[in-house]
Amino acid sequence: MSNDETLDDILKNLLASIPEVQAAAIVSVEGLPIASALPSNADETRIAAMTAAILSLGERAAQELGKGTLEMVFVRGVNGYIITMSAGPNSVLTISTTKDIKLGLVFLDTQRTCAKISKLV
Amino acid sequence: MSNDETLDDILKNLLASIPEVQAAAIVSVEGLPIASALPSNADETRIAAMTAAILSLGERAAQELGKGTLEMVFVRGVNGYIITMSAGPNSVLTISTTKDIKLGLVFLDTQRTCAKISKLV
Repeated sequence: MSNDETLDDILKNLLASIPEVQAAAIVSVEGLPIASALPSNADETRIAAMTAAILSLGERAAQELGKGTLEMVFVRGVNGYIITMSAGPNSVLTISTTKDIKLGLVFLDTQRTCAKISKLV
Repeated sequence: MSNDETLDDILKNLLASIPEVQAAAIVSVEGLPIASALPSNADETRIAAMTAAILSLGERAAQELGKGTLEMVFVRGVNGYIITMSAGPNSVLTISTTKDIKLGLVFLDTQRTCAKISKLV
């Protein structure tokens, strides 16, 4: 039953539905880890800290350049993407993906995942 | 002749080809303004400073999370987008757009514009 889905279930389902998503973490708006689905070599604290920094700068940039409330920050490197998306007023979701993703699909799935998370956090 | 295109021409052409692009600025990797096509109420120094901050954090996030060299940072607010894209080793292009854009088209045009800029800077 989807009503019984925990945060861990939500993250596992996201990783299962898009194989290119390598890691996913839910982080409080203060930058503290809430839940994560990470490969064994990933460091949860590092992802949480990076998420907090991305969020803080994204909010400032959006405000300074008249873009209003921040919804998403997306970083593309030569080896893949980092996507940080607002998941309600208390948390954000950060995912790390390989380079070979269909961005439109990932945005859609991530947005749906954020809607589910915002009901639980 | 496209060979005689200046940086200002390149920015003006970008704004002309995508009406949803409200402002565009070429900034050195150190965060200093190089060229810009901005509405009269926009502050070039502020955009340059934000670009430098976005670039610096994007590079750090990409490196810390194993995404390699930074190619692009994209910030979505409720009122529009800020896109910062690498334009060769010495400069970056930042554009500010309204909410109603076709992202795929903007990415393509911005990438082409960055290729032109990298030959001049």
